[in-house]
Amino acid sequence: MSKVFKMIELVGTSDLNYEGAIQNAISKASESIKEISWFTVEEQRGSIKDGIITEFQVILKVGFKLLD
Amino acid sequence: MSKVFKMIELVGTSDLNYEGAIQNAISKASESIKEISWFTVEEQRGSIKDGIITEFQVILKVGFKLLD
Amino acid sequence: MSKVFKMIELVGTSDLNYEGAIQNAISKASESIKEISWFTVEEQRGSIKDGIITEFQVILKVGFKLLD
Amino acid sequence: MSKVFKMIELVGTSDLNYEGAIQNAISKASESIKEISWFTVEEQRGSIKDGIITEFQVILKVGFKLLD
Amino acid sequence: MSKVFKMIELVGTSDLNYEGAIQNAISKASESIKEISWFTVEEQRGSIKDGIITEFQVILKVGFKLLD
Amino acid sequence: MSKVFKMIELVGTSDLNYEGAIQNAISKASESIKEISWFTVEEQRGSIKDGIITEFQVILKVGFKLLD
Amino acid sequence: MSKVFKMIELVGTSDLNYEGAIQNAISKASESIKEISWFTVEEQRGSIKDGIITEFQVILKVGFKLLD
Amino acid sequence: MSKVFKMIELVGTSDLNYEGAIQNAISKASESIKEISWFTVEEQRGSIKDGIITEFQVILKVGFKLLD
Amino acid sequence: MSKVFKMIELVGTSDLNYEGAIQNAISKASESIKEISWFTVEEQRGSIKDGIITEFQVILKVGFKLLD
Amino acid sequence: MSKVFKMIELVGTSDLNYEGAIQNAISKASESIKEISWFTVEEQRGSIKDGIITEFQVILKVGFKLLD
Amino acid sequence: MSKVFKMIELVGTSDLNYEGAIQNAISKASESIKEISWFTVEEQRGSIKDGIITEFQVILKVGFKLLD
Amino acid sequence: MSKVFKMIELVGTSDLNYEGAIQNAISKASESIKEISWFTVEEQRGSIKDGIITEFQVILKVGFKLLD
Repeated sequence: MSKVFKMIELVGTSDLNYEGAIQNAISKASESIKEISWFTVEEQRGSIKDGIITEFQVILKVGFKLLD
Repeated sequence: MSKVFKMIELVGTSDLNYEGAIQNAISKASESIKEISWFTVEEQRGSIKDGIITEFQVILKVGFKLLD
Repeated sequence: MSKVFKMIELVGTSDLNYEGAIQNAISKASESIKEISWFTVEEQRGSIKDGIITEFQVILKVGFKLLD
Repeated sequence: MSKVFKMIELVGTSDLNYEGAIQNAISKASESIKEISWFTVEEQRGSIKDGIITEFQVILKVGFKLLD
Repeated sequence: MSKVFKMIELVGTSDLNYEGAIQNAISKASESIKEISWFTVEEQRGSIKDGIITEFQVILKVGFKLLD
Repeated sequence: MSKVFKMIELVGTSDLNYEGAIQNAISKASESIKEISWFTVEEQRGSIKDGIITEFQVILKVGFKLLD
Repeated sequence: MSKVFKMIELVGTSDLNYEGAIQNAISKASESIKEISWFTVEEQRGSIKDGIITEFQVILKVGFKLLD
Repeated sequence: MSKVFKMIELVGTSDLNYEGAIQNAISKASESIKEISWFTVEEQRGSIKDGIITEFQVILKVGFKLLD
Repeated sequence: MSKVFKMIELVGTSDLNYEGAIQNAISKASESIKEISWFTVEEQRGSIKDGIITEFQVILKVGFKLLD
Repeated sequence: MSKVFKMIELVGTSDLNYEGAIQNAISKASESIKEISWFTVEEQRGSIKDGIITEFQVILKVGFKLLD
Repeated sequence: MSKVFKMIELVGTSDLNYEGAIQNAISKASESIKEISWFTVEEQRGSIKDGIITEFQVILKVGFKLLD
Repeated sequence: MSKVFKMIELVGTSDLNYEGAIQNAISKASESIKEISWFTVEEQRGSIKDGIITEFQVILKVGFKLLD
């Protein structure tokens, strides 16, 4: 039977960089969804305090196969 | 640990205005999701009958924190 | 036979709010087109004088069924 | 009370055509969601092997009414 | 003298596929406009009932030469 | 009463430049529509033969007031 | 001499509605810029607490003539 | 070593449907490029004569691995 | 130290063509900003009276280096 | 057999205007590609020195038929 | 009174990575603007010499509260 | 004579980060193209296995001068 996938939208954060923010979002989502196999970056933002970036924020979509 | 948020997409409706349509969608979603903290408007549409707007429709995304 | 619809693009104005600007455009179009059944908001703009909004302007598309 | 809808994002696949890929995604989603009433096509892609399309892939959103 | 074209926006429907929905819109428009020579697909949507696609809907623009 | 405008989409052509292509479209439309007051450029294209541009093509929208 | 305008980007907020959020941004900007004559809405967002919209946020651009 | 892919843009045509137009473009490209493994649909258009679609046109990107 | 640039958004006008409208905006901005080094065209519009283009309008962004 | 076209992306430059920048790109490409038959403008930019436009830059796609 | 924010557009550069390019732009802007509190990434580009990235460039918008 | 550039689209991959994925694509392309001088990031994606990012993927365009 043909495969069907679902995509959900997450916001990951990190005080290090965007790669960390993506991994944090995926780690959290993987606690309840086992089959996550790809992601796309939708938007990159961040917070600033006193001229310093305090948080990198990434909006991403993650895709996973719906089980039969 | 870094925060992670989820965003879901809703369509709210109202016969009054767009602000009401947004609030209606959020009120409904808040019955099952406690931590909704922001929304973005994605699209505004509506229905017409006999030259009168009968329904304002708004597609919005709402974001909420995933609990640890 | 399958239904076919036409969409036309209008600009409505109001000194009150966007909902009024949409309704004004639809009221005008309904004088000559009877079957308008939906609209989509494409763009929202406005005019300002002395720091006060004097006109809300909305670009919208309205759709109506082509009669057999 | 005003209606509220939810939209979720799916990827359907088919080795025949895009219409089949959409139907496959909806059939799968309908196993757990009863009230799906519309969809929008977001993106069309596909896989190729030896110069032949082996899979049509469609990213779509499906909308359904949230029950009271 | 240089050619000038007009483009109008239509929604075609079909219970078969998108190609049929496009052709249905063009057939209807051709009853009153003779010179339609091209189209572009703007959006693809559809209706669902009981997990089955009941209608493919396509928003398209059709272009035709304005006669001298 | 509040003003309402209609926008229609045209394709103008010229073998000189884009400004000429826009003016040609507007001149043609003005034969039947008196109140055209603004335009927006949507897309710029062209035809080539033997390495030379033979036609500049511009897709534009023109707006005009609907009379009371 | 030909006119030249500048556009700046603002975020207005209101606990009432989007029209109020736009007016608030323009009122603030008008304290230092006298010639603001139009605006365009770029994005609409908002904050939520306990299922209630607490703030409407609008990103807008305002345009004003540069003085000679 | 990490993989690198190239994407090129093609226009495929067919008098049958979009799936055929995509396959025709890929068949042609596969004569000179062996490793094509995916495609994305960028735009769908077509030609019309006497109210009948005479050609489906699809703009697509195809991706293939650059050999080491 | 690494370079940082600022971009501002302008609307230039001309009764001749778009190139003139861009130059007019840049000439005006250069009265107060010395280091403008590039621009991007964001939107092209215009005004019409009696079927004749009376003003070409271009929305552009101009970029300049922030001095140390 | 059905026609297949390829599109490539170029940046043309001119110190005169955008039409010249497009023609320059096409003239260069025509040295090695014989069948170029259309182009689309993707982006318009430029360089400035001392408040004067020194170079108009246009990103364009050109399309040509792949030979059998 | 309701809060109003301004957003300005910057280009940051770094020879290390995008996070560094963002921080560099914000550090520079913070010399004259104290209240910067968020940013959004609009575009990512870069320069290359002899096959090596010599500069990461990021176009970003930064937002800050307008003081009462 | 005026300069003309070509842009090609690549997908770079890395198991480290996006900067590495971009550099990998450029290194590969530089084996056959000497004059690459800039790039733009078009899309960022990635692969996941067991909740861990296994590959960062970046779609980029690289530009280079066409030789006389």
